[in-house]
Amino acid sequence: MSTVKIEKQVREIENGHILSPEGFKASGVYTGVKRKRLDLGAIVCEVPAATAAVYTLNKIQAAPLQVTKESIAKEGKIKALIVNSGNANACTGKQGLQDAYEMRSLGAKKFECPEHLVAVTSTGVIGEYLQMDKIRAGIDLLSPKQSFLDAEQFNEAILTTDTTKKMACYETTVDGVSVKIGGVAKGSGMIHPNMATMLSFVTTDANIDSAQLQSALSSITNKTFNRITVDGDTSTNDMAVVMASALAKHEPLTPEHPDWSGFYEALELTCESLSKQIAKDGEGATKLIEVIVAGALDDQEAGMVAKQIVGSDLVKSAVYGTDANWGRIICAIGYSGCEINPDTIDISLGSINTLKESSPVSFSEEEATTYLKNDVVQIFVDLHVGNGFGKAWGCDLTYDYVRINAGYRT
Amino acid sequence: MSTVKIEKQVREIENGHILSPEGFKASGVYTGVKRKRLDLGAIVCEVPAATAAVYTLNKIQAAPLQVTKESIAKEGKIKALIVNSGNANACTGKQGLQDAYEMRSLGAKKFECPEHLVAVTSTGVIGEYLQMDKIRAGIDLLSPKQSFLDAEQFNEAILTTDTTKKMACYETTVDGVSVKIGGVAKGSGMIHPNMATMLSFVTTDANIDSAQLQSALSSITNKTFNRITVDGDTSTNDMAVVMASALAKHEPLTPEHPDWSGFYEALELTCESLSKQIAKDGEGATKLIEVIVAGALDDQEAGMVAKQIVGSDLVKSAVYGTDANWGRIICAIGYSGCEINPDTIDISLGSINTLKESSPVSFSEEEATTYLKNDVVQIFVDLHVGNGFGKAWGCDLTYDYVRINAGYRT
Repeated sequence: MSTVKIEKQVREIENGHILSPEGFKASGVYTGVKRKRLDLGAIVCEVPAATAAVYTLNKIQAAPLQVTKESIAKEGKIKALIVNSGNANACTGKQGLQDAYEMRSLGAKKFECPEHLVAVTSTGVIGEYLQMDKIRAGIDLLSPKQSFLDAEQFNEAILTTDTTKKMACYETTVDGVSVKIGGVAKGSGMIHPNMATMLSFVTTDANIDSAQLQSALSSITNKTFNRITVDGDTSTNDMAVVMASALAKHEPLTPEHPDWSGFYEALELTCESLSKQIAKDGEGATKLIEVIVAGALDDQEAGMVAKQIVGSDLVKSAVYGTDANWGRIICAIGYSGCEINPDTIDISLGSINTLKESSPVSFSEEEATTYLKNDVVQIFVDLHVGNGFGKAWGCDLTYDYVRINAGYRT
Repeated sequence: MSTVKIEKQVREIENGHILSPEGFKASGVYTGVKRKRLDLGAIVCEVPAATAAVYTLNKIQAAPLQVTKESIAKEGKIKALIVNSGNANACTGKQGLQDAYEMRSLGAKKFECPEHLVAVTSTGVIGEYLQMDKIRAGIDLLSPKQSFLDAEQFNEAILTTDTTKKMACYETTVDGVSVKIGGVAKGSGMIHPNMATMLSFVTTDANIDSAQLQSALSSITNKTFNRITVDGDTSTNDMAVVMASALAKHEPLTPEHPDWSGFYEALELTCESLSKQIAKDGEGATKLIEVIVAGALDDQEAGMVAKQIVGSDLVKSAVYGTDANWGRIICAIGYSGCEINPDTIDISLGSINTLKESSPVSFSEEEATTYLKNDVVQIFVDLHVGNGFGKAWGCDLTYDYVRINAGYRT
């Protein structure tokens, strides 16, 4: 028997971060918008970086999103990205828009570039004006560097109710050259004590233009960031940005490039890793729930069914209570709106079959309870109506979710 | 100044119930399917009653729904309706269907009518077979009578996690004759420890054929039962049935009849009252939340926006915590998918304005907190994009919701 050794094209870099790819610096400082923690940060690229971004689909969009869209629209590039936490600058009318433009303008002066090469984002309380005196002083303090510590400080500066930092880094090879992708994200509740938002920033030294990057990011977002749910509430400030410095010296990446699939996979793994870290750190959560659906009509429907299951409060409560309550899972499948055959559904919790061809399978409740005590719970569904495959991620619903969200804003 | 005295055409009947309209009897008995409480009931009409019904849109539908649809399809009439609680007879395959047919057959024998004049419904645990020995013995015990006590016993026999009974009764006048509409409902969580379902049974002595009744019920359901949400989970067993005995001696009701609007309104008020009672008794709930949306593109969109707000876990948690957190309300409006203008939204909590033309209005937090401590909290929204109007009802999200739903099935 001959053996073929396949070298894996995509590798995870342990402890890698947004400054692992070449060309990026970062910084995080304390301005006082938040009570105690760092609350203003920047990522700066030594060259204008090809940039792609995706934004919340909520029709109420925060002021900084509008300004950032305008910046990226001009050349498809940005050099600096400034983020504050503690205040979302959402539902703040003309004043809010003016403040976002001022943040951009201050960033352009600080980092000596045209205004349209600066992106701004905010996360935090909705409906309050930015304390611009603090933001101005904070931007002045920023002094981006390239160390792990700086990446960590940037990371801390973008958190709200998060209990953990979220980072990921993958490496691939293009034209024989190493290309790295580093990512950072925040997000716990979609809004909490009026704190908003999923934010995700990804850096790479790949040589790729913004149109190709945008097309990859959009398709990957549908399979990663758009497949997580903590509470079903889509924030006003959600945003994911990828900046590519092109400092890895390879031919420009396009879908025709032989190494495109490796780059695409590394970007997808980065986004998937950040998505799972966000889901696991959902407000009050004790567990990550991963739902894997096969046999749907197509991939999109598989994703919809998976997200419907992982979004069900009843499924989330049952997982919290280590109750192998498959009735709630099939119920969520039934109201997903997707094509199903009521007689051909299989459901397993980890390796424990609970439903086969829509008929109950007898299983050990004790074994199921033990399985559901794990930090990560996987729910497998096969609909047997097609070849569609998709995943979604969420977390359990706990007393702490209610405690956190019933708490007063101030 | 002349005054015109308008006699109100629709009156609420205090302590009225499903046996207030002429021609109906009911009964509730204990069979042992539930541990302690009554768990089997019947409503019987002295004549075959014109019948309309609406069913869950979940693609997984319980066996009794299939059998009841078949019964009603034959003549548009039923004479007897049998309900058990404690077991939903859902996801039970061929055996479940056979059991539902047997329940129907036993009912036909007991009440001496053709099988197609019998409807059957079940509510409770999903995925377990009915204990038919208990059901058989129970049907034999049924002895419907016309007193308030019998109505109460029927009511008790259909409850699962409900903490209150839900009844409503309205009277209107058709051709100078009194017509009554009585209703009963159950529903608390859409599913709980695998207990399912919203069930609603309405009786009337109106003279109306099943097609007209169906058309009224379908349109009213969209404005009442379909506008409540406890947890966003659409059950496999939801069903609402209206039976009309025609014993009030008036000309047949059609939309052309001069008293049609009074009848329609009385039926709508009955269904709305039951809907609000279900929402208020949501699992773990301490408050009823009523969301009233004006100025939407059309009535349907108003209803969708209202339901999106009342279904937001973040809004529900904030109401529980008496936090006047309008940011979460506008966020839910933004992701409702409906036509909005981000600059023209008004939001009030009771009479307290919090947002006017999408800009924050300063209000007394203390006053707002006091308002949010009420048993009933009203959220008013005006979108200012059209004339659409709609309401939706729900409840707050509390520790108890999690406690109830994290609990083990058995």
